[in-house]
Amino acid sequence: MERKEKKGSIGVFEIDAEDLLGRAGKIYTAHGIVRTPALVPVINPAKNILDATEIRDMGFDIVITNAYLIRRYYGDLALELGVHGVLGVEGVVMTDSGAYQLLVYGDIDVDPREIVQFQVKLGSDIGVILDIPTRLGSSKEKVRGEVEETLRRVKEALDMDLGDMLLVGPVQGGLYLDMVAYSAKVLSELDVDVFAVGGPTQLLEGYRYSDLVKLVMTAKMNLSPEKPLHLFGAGHPMIIPFIVAMGVDMFDSASYALYARDGRYMLPHGTYRVEELNELPCQCPVCSKYDAKELRELPREEREVELARHNLYVLKRELSLVRQAITEGTLWNLLESRAKAHPALYAALQTLRRYIHYIEKRHPLTHVNVRAEFFYDANSRYRPSVYRYLIRLRDRYAPPGRRIALLLPDWPSRPFSRFGWTAELIKRLPEDLKAKVHALGLSPAYGIVPAELEGVYPTSQYEIPDDPTELLEDAIKDVAWFFRRHKGSYAGVVIVIYEEFLRLAQRMSLSIKEAGLKSSIIVKRGEDTIDMISEKVISELSSLLAGST
Amino acid sequence: MERKEKKGSIGVFEIDAEDLLGRAGKIYTAHGIVRTPALVPVINPAKNILDATEIRDMGFDIVITNAYLIRRYYGDLALELGVHGVLGVEGVVMTDSGAYQLLVYGDIDVDPREIVQFQVKLGSDIGVILDIPTRLGSSKEKVRGEVEETLRRVKEALDMDLGDMLLVGPVQGGLYLDMVAYSAKVLSELDVDVFAVGGPTQLLEGYRYSDLVKLVMTAKMNLSPEKPLHLFGAGHPMIIPFIVAMGVDMFDSASYALYARDGRYMLPHGTYRVEELNELPCQCPVCSKYDAKELRELPREEREVELARHNLYVLKRELSLVRQAITEGTLWNLLESRAKAHPALYAALQTLRRYIHYIEKRHPLTHVNVRAEFFYDANSRYRPSVYRYLIRLRDRYAPPGRRIALLLPDWPSRPFSRFGWTAELIKRLPEDLKAKVHALGLSPAYGIVPAELEGVYPTSQYEIPDDPTELLEDAIKDVAWFFRRHKGSYAGVVIVIYEEFLRLAQRMSLSIKEAGLKSSIIVKRGEDTIDMISEKVISELSSLLAGST
Repeated sequence: MERKEKKGSIGVFEIDAEDLLGRAGKIYTAHGIVRTPALVPVINPAKNILDATEIRDMGFDIVITNAYLIRRYYGDLALELGVHGVLGVEGVVMTDSGAYQLLVYGDIDVDPREIVQFQVKLGSDIGVILDIPTRLGSSKEKVRGEVEETLRRVKEALDMDLGDMLLVGPVQGGLYLDMVAYSAKVLSELDVDVFAVGGPTQLLEGYRYSDLVKLVMTAKMNLSPEKPLHLFGAGHPMIIPFIVAMGVDMFDSASYALYARDGRYMLPHGTYRVEELNELPCQCPVCSKYDAKELRELPREEREVELARHNLYVLKRELSLVRQAITEGTLWNLLESRAKAHPALYAALQTLRRYIHYIEKRHPLTHVNVRAEFFYDANSRYRPSVYRYLIRLRDRYAPPGRRIALLLPDWPSRPFSRFGWTAELIKRLPEDLKAKVHALGLSPAYGIVPAELEGVYPTSQYEIPDDPTELLEDAIKDVAWFFRRHKGSYAGVVIVIYEEFLRLAQRMSLSIKEAGLKSSIIVKRGEDTIDMISEKVISELSSLLAGST
Repeated sequence: MERKEKKGSIGVFEIDAEDLLGRAGKIYTAHGIVRTPALVPVINPAKNILDATEIRDMGFDIVITNAYLIRRYYGDLALELGVHGVLGVEGVVMTDSGAYQLLVYGDIDVDPREIVQFQVKLGSDIGVILDIPTRLGSSKEKVRGEVEETLRRVKEALDMDLGDMLLVGPVQGGLYLDMVAYSAKVLSELDVDVFAVGGPTQLLEGYRYSDLVKLVMTAKMNLSPEKPLHLFGAGHPMIIPFIVAMGVDMFDSASYALYARDGRYMLPHGTYRVEELNELPCQCPVCSKYDAKELRELPREEREVELARHNLYVLKRELSLVRQAITEGTLWNLLESRAKAHPALYAALQTLRRYIHYIEKRHPLTHVNVRAEFFYDANSRYRPSVYRYLIRLRDRYAPPGRRIALLLPDWPSRPFSRFGWTAELIKRLPEDLKAKVHALGLSPAYGIVPAELEGVYPTSQYEIPDDPTELLEDAIKDVAWFFRRHKGSYAGVVIVIYEEFLRLAQRMSLSIKEAGLKSSIIVKRGEDTIDMISEKVISELSSLLAGST
C-alpha cells in the first residue's frame, strides 16, 4: 500500500554539504526543521533533569522522549496534552516506543500496533516502531527471528494512517553482520522516512568502537543513501565525529543526564569524575560561572543540573565542530585527531579505513573551501582523495610513450615540476634528453605523481611533517605497483633522493628491478648545488639511454 | 654583587605538580601570585583592543606591556601613574623593554641601563633587560656578539637596585644551538629570577615547530631547572601543550589581538577566517551570544573586539586543559592528540621524542590520579614511562637463573600471569616444568615484561587499540634486545602468539635465533581451547628441555 502524501515538505531531507559519508542538511517535520547531523537529547517524560525548553534554547533542534513511559505515567491525559504539551515544548519532538525498556526489562506490556498509533495520536513528529533490539550474545537463530519480526512490524506500521509523523525503521542484527545487511536491504525497499541502527549501547559501554564501525557501516552500505539515518543511544562526544563520518545523521542520547547523575563531566576527549578536576577546561556558561572547586562543592542536586547543562554544551560544541568540518571538507583531519583521544577510537579509525572503497564512491569531488590536506602516517593515506587518485591512476592513466623515468621528490616544493630545485633540474635537461625523459614526482602522500598530473587537485595541496618517513614507508608500495604495471613504458628509472631517505630509495630501486627495469639512485646531499646534481642526473640519464638503445 | 633580598616570598616559584617537563605552580610577585603555566596577554599601552582589567577578570593572572612604548607615549606622566596606573589594572604586570621593536625596526632610541631602571620605577612586577633578539639568518659571528652583549646587559642589570621587580634573563642564539646552550649555561650562573627564550616568533610564523623544539629544549637542558622559564611571543593554542611539555612556564602573546584585527577566529586545532565559518564550535560567552552569521556581520570594530575576547577564551581553555593534564599526568596523551592538529605539530612531537633521555630524568615517578596510559603507534612508545622501564630493565634486571622462556601475549588481559587464558596456561604447567620455565609477557607497550615485574606500575595499566600491530612492530626490537642481552639465562624461547601476529612472531623468533637461542612458535587460533593450547605448550617446553640437557 502507498503511504498517504504528507503535507508540504514534511519528510524532506535536504543535503547541503557532504564529506566522507557525513552530511550537513535539514530534515523537515511537522513542527519545524532539524539541522543535521543532530544530537537528540533524551527527555524523561516523568521528570527530566532539565526542561525540554531549556534544552531547545541551548540550540538543540529536536528532543526525544519515550511514548511507552508517557502512556504509563500520563495515561489518557497524554492524548489531551499531546507530546508537545507533556514536555512543555514547541518544536520538533521525536518519540521512542519502549524498545529500550524491552531490552532492559524484558517483556513489557506494549502492543506493537498500538504504540505506533499512540505516537501518532500524541502528535509526535518522528515515531519509532516497537523494534526488538538485538542483544549481544543472543543466538543467531534468535536474532534472525527478531529481525524478521522487526521488519514485519515496520510493514504493519506503514499500513496504518501515520498522519504527518515520520516513521523510523530500525536495522537490527547486532554483530551478525549478514543479518544487519539483510535487515538493511529489506528496509531500503520500504517506505519509511528515517532509517535507524539499533543496539549500539552495549558496544559503546564496552568501548567496542571498532565493532560499532562494523555494525554501522554494514547497515549504511545496504541502506538507500537518500534517507536520514538515526543511531540509537550514541551520545558521547568522542564518538560523534566517527558516527557522522559513517553517514549517521541523527543520534539520541541520555548521556548528558546519566553522566551528570553520576557526577561526570564531559570533555571532547573523555569524561572526568568531577572530583578529579582541578581545572574546568571549558568556557561554557556553566564553567564561566564556577571554578573546579566551586562546581565540586555545589549541593548534590544543583551540581547534577549544572553538570547536565555543561555536558550538553560540550556535545553541542562537538556537533558544531563536525558540521563545520563537513562544510569545509576536513572531517578526515578531525577523525585522525580525535582517534588519539582513546586507543578504542584509534581502533575505530583503523576499522573505518577498511571501508574506504565504499566511502570514496560517495565522498564529494571537491569542497567550496579547499583546505590543504594533512598527512601524518600510513593512516592518513586512507583518505578518499588518495584512494580516488590511485584508482584513477590505475584505470585511466597511461605514460607518454617509452622513456626513462626520472623520479624526483615532490617535497618540500610543490608542484615539483614548477618550483624548487626539482623544477630547475628539469629545466636544465638538454632538449634532446628532455624528450626522452618522463618526470615523475615521488609524493609521500600520493605515491607517484606524473608531472602532467601535478596540476590536478589535490595532488599538490597537502602538508606533511618535516620528516615524512612514515608516509614514504607506505607510499613506496604504490611506487612499486606503478612500475610493475607500466614496465613496458619505461626503459629504466633514475631515482633522485635526499640523503636521509637513501635506504627507502634502495628498497624502491629493488622493487623496480624486480619488475624487470633498470634502476639507479642519485643521492642529493644538503650541500649539493644544483650544478652538481644536474650534472650527475644528466650523465646517468644519458648512460641509461645509451644502454637501452 | 649579591642582589638585595626581596620582600617576603616575592620571587618564589612553587611547583605543585609536574608532568614531562611541564610544571603547574605559582610565581609570587609584588602584586600577587601567577599560576603557571601562564599565558601572558600583551597589552598595547597606547590603545588596547580590550581593557587590561577585562582580561584579568577573564582569569589571566598576569599581563605584559611594553616599557619602551609607555615611555614614548606617556613620558614622565608614566612615572607618576606607574605601570599599573597606565594600564588601569591591579594585579601582576610584566613589562618588556622594547627588544621586539629593536628586532622589527632596527636601532631604537633606548639605553639598556635606563630602560631597566625605568621598569623598576614604573613598579613593574617582572621586568626584562633590553636583550638583542636573534634574527634567523644572521651570521654566527653576529649572533655570538649579540649573545655576549645580552649577557653583559643581564649582569649590568643585576648590579642595579631592582627593588621588588623580578628580572628576566633571556637566552638568545636562535638556531645556533651551541650558542643557545652557551647562553643558557652562563645565565644559569646569574641571579636572575626568570629565564626566558627569545626569538621564536619567526619560527612560529613559519610553522617551524620542529626547530622551535630544538631551540627551547637546548635552552631548557642548559638552564638550572628550579627557576621559571618564559617564552617570548608564543600564543597560538596549538603550540601551548608542546611548549609547556618542554618546561615553559610562561609565554606572552599578542596573537589574540593580532588575529582579531585580521578577522581570525582561534580554535584549539587551528585558526579560521571568520568568513569561513558556518558554525561557531565554541561555547564561550561570545559564541553563546552570536551564531556564525551574526558574528561575521558585526560592524568591523565590534567584531574585532568580540574576536579578541573569543580568542582569549580559547587560549584560556587550552591553558586549563594543560594544567589539568599536568596534575593528572596525561600531558603525553594530550601531545599525541594535538600532534594531529597539523603536520608541523606532528614534526614537533617527533623532534621532542629525541629528547626523551632528558625528559625521562625529570619526569615525576607517579601521579596522584593514576590514569591508564594510551598507546597507539611507535610514537606512543616514547613516553617517559616506557623509556624508564627499559632503562631499568637494562640496568637492574637479571632473569631468575637458566630456564626456558615462555613468551605470552599480555593482551587482552593484564596482568597476563593473573588473568585470562595466559594465567590459566601458566597454572596448568606441571610443577616440575614450572620450575624450569620463566614466563614473560610480550607487551605492545612495554616490550618484554617478566611475570615478576608485572605488578609494578605502569607495565599493566595501559590501553591499546584492538589491533596493536603498529606498536608490536616497534616493540619486537626490544624483545630482540632482551634475548641478546640475556642469552646466557635462557635455554630457549617458546613464543605463543595469536594467529594474526604470526609474521611478527617469526621475525622475533629469527632475532632470537640470531642471538644463539633455540626458539619455536605456537600459534593460538581463535577457536583453540585452553586444553589444546596447554597441551601444545607443555609438549614444546618439554621437548626443548629434553634437547637442552
